[in-house]
Amino acid sequence: MSYFDAASSLPLHPVAQQALLAALDEGWADPARPHREGRRARMLLDAARETAAEAVGCRPDELWFTSSGTRALHTGIAGALAGRRRVGRQLVLSAVEHSAVLHAAAAHERAGGSVCEVGVDRTGRVNAREYGEALDPGSALACLQSANHEVGTVQPVTETAAVCAEAGVPLLVDAAQSLPWEAPPEGWSLLTASAHKWGGPSGVGLLAVRKGVRFAAPEPADERESGRAPGFENVPAIVAAAASLRAVRAEAGAEAARLRALVDRIRERVPELVPDTEVVGDPVRRLPHLVTFSCLYVDGEAVLQALDAAGFSVSSGSSCTSSTLTPSHVLRAMGVLSEGNVRVSLPPGVDEAEVNRFLSALPGVVDGVRAHVGAASLGSSAPAAGASSAPAEPTGSPAAPEPAEPAASALTVDALGKKCPVPVIELAKVIERVPVGGVVTVLADDVAARLDIPAWCEMTGHAFVDASGDAFRVRRVAASG
Amino acid sequence: MSYFDAASSLPLHPVAQQALLAALDEGWADPARPHREGRRARMLLDAARETAAEAVGCRPDELWFTSSGTRALHTGIAGALAGRRRVGRQLVLSAVEHSAVLHAAAAHERAGGSVCEVGVDRTGRVNAREYGEALDPGSALACLQSANHEVGTVQPVTETAAVCAEAGVPLLVDAAQSLPWEAPPEGWSLLTASAHKWGGPSGVGLLAVRKGVRFAAPEPADERESGRAPGFENVPAIVAAAASLRAVRAEAGAEAARLRALVDRIRERVPELVPDTEVVGDPVRRLPHLVTFSCLYVDGEAVLQALDAAGFSVSSGSSCTSSTLTPSHVLRAMGVLSEGNVRVSLPPGVDEAEVNRFLSALPGVVDGVRAHVGAASLGSSAPAAGASSAPAEPTGSPAAPEPAEPAASALTVDALGKKCPVPVIELAKVIERVPVGGVVTVLADDVAARLDIPAWCEMTGHAFVDASGDAFRVRRVAASG
Repeated sequence: MSYFDAASSLPLHPVAQQALLAALDEGWADPARPHREGRRARMLLDAARETAAEAVGCRPDELWFTSSGTRALHTGIAGALAGRRRVGRQLVLSAVEHSAVLHAAAAHERAGGSVCEVGVDRTGRVNAREYGEALDPGSALACLQSANHEVGTVQPVTETAAVCAEAGVPLLVDAAQSLPWEAPPEGWSLLTASAHKWGGPSGVGLLAVRKGVRFAAPEPADERESGRAPGFENVPAIVAAAASLRAVRAEAGAEAARLRALVDRIRERVPELVPDTEVVGDPVRRLPHLVTFSCLYVDGEAVLQALDAAGFSVSSGSSCTSSTLTPSHVLRAMGVLSEGNVRVSLPPGVDEAEVNRFLSALPGVVDGVRAHVGAASLGSSAPAAGASSAPAEPTGSPAAPEPAEPAASALTVDALGKKCPVPVIELAKVIERVPVGGVVTVLADDVAARLDIPAWCEMTGHAFVDASGDAFRVRRVAASG
Repeated sequence: MSYFDAASSLPLHPVAQQALLAALDEGWADPARPHREGRRARMLLDAARETAAEAVGCRPDELWFTSSGTRALHTGIAGALAGRRRVGRQLVLSAVEHSAVLHAAAAHERAGGSVCEVGVDRTGRVNAREYGEALDPGSALACLQSANHEVGTVQPVTETAAVCAEAGVPLLVDAAQSLPWEAPPEGWSLLTASAHKWGGPSGVGLLAVRKGVRFAAPEPADERESGRAPGFENVPAIVAAAASLRAVRAEAGAEAARLRALVDRIRERVPELVPDTEVVGDPVRRLPHLVTFSCLYVDGEAVLQALDAAGFSVSSGSSCTSSTLTPSHVLRAMGVLSEGNVRVSLPPGVDEAEVNRFLSALPGVVDGVRAHVGAASLGSSAPAAGASSAPAEPTGSPAAPEPAEPAASALTVDALGKKCPVPVIELAKVIERVPVGGVVTVLADDVAARLDIPAWCEMTGHAFVDASGDAFRVRRVAASG
């Protein structure tokens, strides 16, 4: 098995395991107690705080341990908003933040606050100037991830911090994905992270709040972690988390360079090996270990299952793999294809041979899924198709709504009730029957279609005319190749 | 070292350690992911839920894992209050609940809700009928611990559940102290507990909510734990917690009987060995492993330190050992002495010889502290003094406010600004100079004095006349012995 879902969670780092076992022996008592066992736990907790603060680049008394990265975000956002309530109630965030940030924003909105979402470009990157324009005198807090968890794009934190500082708005940086790799850029007011992303145990998040930042911890609170994280401190896990962070950082430089080269290979080879595939995210300003691509005419769940059967564990932002049945909000914000989405995030120490094995297996896996949904021959139907060359015959399969040749201008594909990737497959099947310059209307009520039909046009070179309700109009463009 | 603070936290049970190590290998992935590692984590999580549900006595789909017992209480209380907001906003609880409940109640009050506290008797026990009288049509939730964490008194949960059911008010039972020993009594609507109290790892709480109980999880929420505990599930710790709960329950019957006998010995011997000591809490309806007593004329912190130096780790509810400088709210609600308070909670497997060693060491420890504060000879100044016999001479120390014999009716001890146990010591020193039937006024602004001066009167047989502001009046009673 090759586990390529490092951005989701990692097995315990050997250093973390050692530290955990030692701290389970020495640090199980209540660090608030004055007795010997309590004092020992307190010393371990203090030492872990020093270590973590050094990795974050803050003072130990600016850093608190929470029960998860999610909790750190929820507490950080609520605390900063409450601390600046007199200033205003606007929360500014990028459209591609982690769902924990979006949940906190939704809660803030339901409680009467306002939320301003800053869009991203097609690589998933915010523009610091645009971010600055979203700030206003009522902005209480700004949030920006250091790097995106789904597509790996690194955000312009330093530049955004500068515009926030100019506007006098504190910036919370969600450093969950980047903290294992490097110290966060300067300029943050609050910072969060999660230990199981760097080989620490789950159950440990970090919340750092710079001195001077107004903060009112959400209630109920207690005396633990200076009132910012109620409940018995999980000292053994905290000790393991801090030890692990120091260990992975010591290896981060060399390992980042190695994984960066492997990811470059994936970014380059996948579009060559698998036709009609789009690699998304910034190719350069990105996390070292993460790459995401989407494949036309397949559903993400089937690809995941087939990769799983072939021995590869990956993740997907396709709608069919989520409980909400909507595509990842990150892919939506980027305006890129969501169907057949695959995120590969390499764990530290991954073998180069594993990556090569993945590249060998992927084409067969995607072909197999495409064949299963009757889309095997669609790969070359595009006017500007890349690797494959022979124009496909119209399949005339029962999925095409009109077996007889219709009036070109009236051609309509009824994919209502059909889920991703069916609407796009049906569009691809019918496009050959549309005269060049003619328009086909696709009726589709699947949420993913709003993303995938324009993305299909972008990838195949046909022209997306417009969308109105559940009707999407596409004009056939002459083959350019 | 003898660790006698089991009610605070326990080292990891060997079964928990084994389960944790196995689950760190097998259950580190995200249980929400469909890949192999994710499915394995999900299976472990499901199995742990089955195990925990069996120990709690509920269905697996009625039980969620939180990041701590405190978090389970905060979420349970907020969720139940929100779920029944249309009914009303009153929260009913006993005066001796865990501080996490009191913090949740305070937050509820600050948010505009109302809180009704039900008092307890001198053993710390609520009366179910009185509890029922506190319920009204606007009661949204009632809270009652299964047993008290400071004095061990078991609460009448079944009877209270019956009055709550009659009033149609859901009852949340905080089972943190009793769950390791036995399945909770029937009748609860919500139930909470904490794994590190039974030798599981810290970082795991339980929240059970019966089907049909209205519950609206506090925001922000996510899809984890059915929306009731946001953030990445801590699967390895949850697995260890469940395994440990099953293991301690298998041993609980025999171990409870053994510890009960050891605690009985402490309850019996301490007042014999240490004069002017009161054992508090219900002597029969109590946790098997826990006993609390208070010693006149000493401060709890000094006793804790001296016991720590002698190799015993215990806890205290005295004001001088808490960050708030007020005595434990439990002792206050019971109206018992708070000075020199010592809680002994025996860990499973404790050696009988350790308990005997403690009983041998305790008198010397308390004597040493009393001598240090100049209270060594006060033990027999009481009219109804027990073990010690010779009447003490007035010490005439500088602490006594009036070296010359004052007019009896005007005798005043000025202990303003003095902290526990000084006001009581000064009272004990001066009482010999008060004629029988005469009154002494103690001026004391330490919060503990409100509790300890009446308790001193109760213990020594003198009459507490009244308190007015910082002035406490005490009438000397003739020696009865």
